[in-house]
Amino acid sequence: MLAYEHQAQYYETDQMGIIHHSNYIRWFESARIWYMSQIGIDYRDMEKQGVISPVLEVSCTYKSMVHFGDVVEIIPKVEKYNGVTLELSYQILDRETQEVRTYGRSRHCFLGQDGKPLSLKKGYPIFDAAFRGAMESGQMGEEICRMH
Amino acid sequence: MLAYEHQAQYYETDQMGIIHHSNYIRWFESARIWYMSQIGIDYRDMEKQGVISPVLEVSCTYKSMVHFGDVVEIIPKVEKYNGVTLELSYQILDRETQEVRTYGRSRHCFLGQDGKPLSLKKGYPIFDAAFRGAMESGQMGEEICRMH
Amino acid sequence: MLAYEHQAQYYETDQMGIIHHSNYIRWFESARIWYMSQIGIDYRDMEKQGVISPVLEVSCTYKSMVHFGDVVEIIPKVEKYNGVTLELSYQILDRETQEVRTYGRSRHCFLGQDGKPLSLKKGYPIFDAAFRGAMESGQMGEEICRMH
Amino acid sequence: MLAYEHQAQYYETDQMGIIHHSNYIRWFESARIWYMSQIGIDYRDMEKQGVISPVLEVSCTYKSMVHFGDVVEIIPKVEKYNGVTLELSYQILDRETQEVRTYGRSRHCFLGQDGKPLSLKKGYPIFDAAFRGAMESGQMGEEICRMH
Repeated sequence: MLAYEHQAQYYETDQMGIIHHSNYIRWFESARIWYMSQIGIDYRDMEKQGVISPVLEVSCTYKSMVHFGDVVEIIPKVEKYNGVTLELSYQILDRETQEVRTYGRSRHCFLGQDGKPLSLKKGYPIFDAAFRGAMESGQMGEEICRMH
Repeated sequence: MLAYEHQAQYYETDQMGIIHHSNYIRWFESARIWYMSQIGIDYRDMEKQGVISPVLEVSCTYKSMVHFGDVVEIIPKVEKYNGVTLELSYQILDRETQEVRTYGRSRHCFLGQDGKPLSLKKGYPIFDAAFRGAMESGQMGEEICRMH
Repeated sequence: MLAYEHQAQYYETDQMGIIHHSNYIRWFESARIWYMSQIGIDYRDMEKQGVISPVLEVSCTYKSMVHFGDVVEIIPKVEKYNGVTLELSYQILDRETQEVRTYGRSRHCFLGQDGKPLSLKKGYPIFDAAFRGAMESGQMGEEICRMH
Repeated sequence: MLAYEHQAQYYETDQMGIIHHSNYIRWFESARIWYMSQIGIDYRDMEKQGVISPVLEVSCTYKSMVHFGDVVEIIPKVEKYNGVTLELSYQILDRETQEVRTYGRSRHCFLGQDGKPLSLKKGYPIFDAAFRGAMESGQMGEEICRMH
């Protein structure tokens, strides 16, 4: 299981006394980029090679609250990938209790420097193989990111 | 049509040169709170009366990009309300071109000071009537929020 | 007096029940960019012409708290400008009571596309004239930005 | 030396292609709260005991840019403490090159539940001793926070 750890920050709280719901969308991103590095894709490299990967869709279901100081594990998983679009799911668990805090999804495409959609399958076989491998194997390995 | 205007800020951009997708979730909130004030519910009052309204679910579909300096109109609409949960939809349009930028949804419950779900219908008839009225009438009136 | 109005948003609060102090730095930026547009400089144009204006220094003194829903006026002023660096001050007032909420400062330079400092005075006489004019006249005119 | 590590996130970038300057103020906070825990003060406990510690002043000097993916070390230090106000300095270094990215300062007071300033010295001897000890010893120990 690949899990990205994050400690909820004070600046992420709101006056309800909990973590503001918009931050989970940011945590998904952090976990996604870290996950990509684990399967061999450095997002900075990808951008340098002229590929960006904007978000087409994002959703998040909040099951229980995260409070300041809590440590959560964010577990991304490649759900779908066809060379042109990519879909991930995310689970956020409390590290201590393993209670589910949130479920989420994000869907992405890939754009070239001209802003037009491109196929990783055709133009970027190494990235393509990495995403395909990740999708096929599900969560592989045992790695926890403790530094971010 | 009730539309909440927002000008995309520099601090909301990311290195793709567009507005970071997490900000739309925040804009939904701004529009929602403003919309509530238009139908007679001051969110500050609601909190003072001991009711909070956390987000249960949020989703967002990105159709086209928003850039720094663009002015968007965010149009919230009460889709479902049953006294216990509330669901809104949001449309984000470019003010100038009226092109759709984003669609979204959010679902909410209401909690009392003990953190337990409560029924507005039973305990807060004025709030209940306001949400019910908004749902039944769809978008009513013609009001644009230009100041926020 | 040129004043940029902002209504404090829910997502800007923290669990102290006030606006998180980091947001004022963002409000300075919003007010600065708006102010520039008032003196004839469109920041987007400036970037398109290959000039960016990073922050060299920022400071903020918090005199009293801003709460969710409060409307503040942010009043920027060009304090120093010599063609190469720019310094602004900011005052944040409560719109209703005119009580001071915050004082601040920011200092900027100008960089070209090669990342090297450049002189607006030498290369961009129109921007140079605008900043110089703003500095010399102090706050001129009477304009309030109600939409952002 | 007590250093709080942070990896610069994509959502912290702006369209200049660097980390937006407002985020450093947030990193100061993260490092400060972590530092407090190292000297024996759990900020959550402090709030539970009815003490909050708002920011009176903050400043930041930017020496060089931080980019997405960079890992920085944030080194907080108690500069002044008199039982009533607290002042810290921060240094942000690139972890790899040890180049200075930023210097900063923050000044804080302590407020009770009535919103009035209070003296830790009089009312909270354990917190008082911790801050006093930190100030007197300067940076003590060798600890790096790799998880946050």
